[in-house]
Amino acid sequence: MTGSTAATFTTDDYRTRMERAARAAADAGLAGLLVAPGPDLVWLTGYAPTAATERLTLLVLAADRDPVLVVPTLEAPDAAHAAGAAAVTLRDWTDGKDPYALTAGLLDASGRYGISDNAWAMHLLGLQKALPDTSYASLTEALPMLRAVKNAAELDLLAAAGAAADAAFEEIRKVPFGGRRESDVARDLADLLRRFGHSQVDFTIVASGPNGANPHHEVGDRVVERGDMVVLDFGGLKDGYGSDTSRTVHVGEPTDEERRVHDIVREAQEAGFRAVRPGVPCQDVDRAARAVVADAGYGEYFIHRTGHGIGVTTHEPPYIIEGEEQPLVPGMCFSVEPGIYLPGRFGVRIEDIVTVTGDGGRRLNDTTREMLIVE
Amino acid sequence: MTGSTAATFTTDDYRTRMERAARAAADAGLAGLLVAPGPDLVWLTGYAPTAATERLTLLVLAADRDPVLVVPTLEAPDAAHAAGAAAVTLRDWTDGKDPYALTAGLLDASGRYGISDNAWAMHLLGLQKALPDTSYASLTEALPMLRAVKNAAELDLLAAAGAAADAAFEEIRKVPFGGRRESDVARDLADLLRRFGHSQVDFTIVASGPNGANPHHEVGDRVVERGDMVVLDFGGLKDGYGSDTSRTVHVGEPTDEERRVHDIVREAQEAGFRAVRPGVPCQDVDRAARAVVADAGYGEYFIHRTGHGIGVTTHEPPYIIEGEEQPLVPGMCFSVEPGIYLPGRFGVRIEDIVTVTGDGGRRLNDTTREMLIVE
Repeated sequence: MTGSTAATFTTDDYRTRMERAARAAADAGLAGLLVAPGPDLVWLTGYAPTAATERLTLLVLAADRDPVLVVPTLEAPDAAHAAGAAAVTLRDWTDGKDPYALTAGLLDASGRYGISDNAWAMHLLGLQKALPDTSYASLTEALPMLRAVKNAAELDLLAAAGAAADAAFEEIRKVPFGGRRESDVARDLADLLRRFGHSQVDFTIVASGPNGANPHHEVGDRVVERGDMVVLDFGGLKDGYGSDTSRTVHVGEPTDEERRVHDIVREAQEAGFRAVRPGVPCQDVDRAARAVVADAGYGEYFIHRTGHGIGVTTHEPPYIIEGEEQPLVPGMCFSVEPGIYLPGRFGVRIEDIVTVTGDGGRRLNDTTREMLIVE
Repeated sequence: MTGSTAATFTTDDYRTRMERAARAAADAGLAGLLVAPGPDLVWLTGYAPTAATERLTLLVLAADRDPVLVVPTLEAPDAAHAAGAAAVTLRDWTDGKDPYALTAGLLDASGRYGISDNAWAMHLLGLQKALPDTSYASLTEALPMLRAVKNAAELDLLAAAGAAADAAFEEIRKVPFGGRRESDVARDLADLLRRFGHSQVDFTIVASGPNGANPHHEVGDRVVERGDMVVLDFGGLKDGYGSDTSRTVHVGEPTDEERRVHDIVREAQEAGFRAVRPGVPCQDVDRAARAVVADAGYGEYFIHRTGHGIGVTTHEPPYIIEGEEQPLVPGMCFSVEPGIYLPGRFGVRIEDIVTVTGDGGRRLNDTTREMLIVE
């Protein structure tokens, strides 16, 4: 879910992010942050080890000390080449040594730390054993909005990723759908995303006919037929920042009901988009989209949240969901993607990435939201 | 690191594995096991969600109750199609509900549980909060040998994966090496592994000349030259089980020293293999291989353990390393892969997968261990 952004950001960018994170941790009553390999580590240091493994790699951030990155000796040369490496001190440990003892020496023995959601349980257990009086909070729970507000350079990268996804859609709408397997169309879509600059394709959902009624259907061997609605939902990373867009197309002429359902979803998406402006709670965007679907009598068939944030990953806070009272802030980026799913029959989803501006929202996807007829 | 083994195993196979795991947990003084998405979950249930996420998926095993798989509602249909699904009870939870409360209801409130090494820290914290009197141990630390002993069907799959890797080697030795980049040869090797049935390629190391002296070098843009030693180390998953083999070839005629070093490694590999038999501690296999290298005066250049287990992943217990006193058991499978690494000059590594039989060992790789001359 992460990629290289080496070319874009400077050591100062990474230093600023780490300082901001350490301050946010202190403000939240935490002694510091413990960041495992993954999106937060990429964002904070530019470092993305090949794989998260049983060997501990952990960034230790605290307001009163310089950042330290604990790494296995074998991986220290790679870490030293990370884009933000100059802003951290590396502390390496060799096989057979205890990395938890090393890390414990960097921590307040009775402090409460935020730790990456996806840190391995075995590493958390190692730290809890080494320092029994420490306590821990999920980093996302403690600081959900750590990466949520994007700066101008990040917004440019997200806009470029969105434009690349749009370019892929403009090409995929020209390929034949009918008579081909979903997996064949999905492969075309992945090739197009790469051709337009994506280094990583996270998903290329092609859900035809009844498969479209399952929002988690990804792709299968079903042959797309004339008369099918087809939900396309695709995205990945370009230059380290994410794209994620959905359009629902139709093979041949749609029925009146298919048109009506598509119209409702399109209006719901528009209503969600129009609800976006600074200070509005996230849940209000969900409510605005959901109200359109409910008023049209399809409320029970809109079975997921309206959206999720996007940045160095394709799914992250803020979540656009009932109960999320976080007010929108300029620079936040997230999807607005209502859908209607009629079991056993068909589904429709329309999704744009939207960023919060000074006085409203701006879409990062620009292809038509009208239902396109494909071959 | 995991793949589908759906076609191979029956519901009874999965039930047996889960019962065995629950019994092993009880024998180790644990109230049960909590298994997150990953290799253990694949092995126990055949279920491999597309990705591990912030949404809790967790298999709960305990000796006194039937297995329960906690899954997000959206993923329940996929889970229900897993090969071993009939042997577990699915308990799904919807977005907005508390999955830890659901899981807590399945646990002994003061029990000690083994939890997957790679379970997310946020999930462990959620459980610790829901049941403050529970305690946890890393599953690999508590039950390192859970998947180590393979049954006949698993051995067949590992043998087939090994044979496919051997077939790839027999082809790669015919391609031109000299004048091509390591990355080009690596791509050929990956294509061959796939052609011979691998669904997933985990690594295709091509380490030429001085790069061969770094056991962690994977592949680069270096152009292979006449006179180079080239370490090839490649593997992945075929039908859900792993391959991993190494051979060291030479471009054109080797020097006397290169021949000598290769002979020493070959003899060390043979000595390691001959040490394999039931009841022998893992470390004795390491010692046997290492003694040959040390006696030849190259001890300081054999800078890694002799081997690692293999199964539904390409690296797992048992580890063939000094200090590992676990006795070998028939059905265990692991690599025997000594090497010599001369900094700045060249390296040699020879690796076979070996399984423990009733009275010795059996290799699952059969290509020649003599040094082959390539173009």
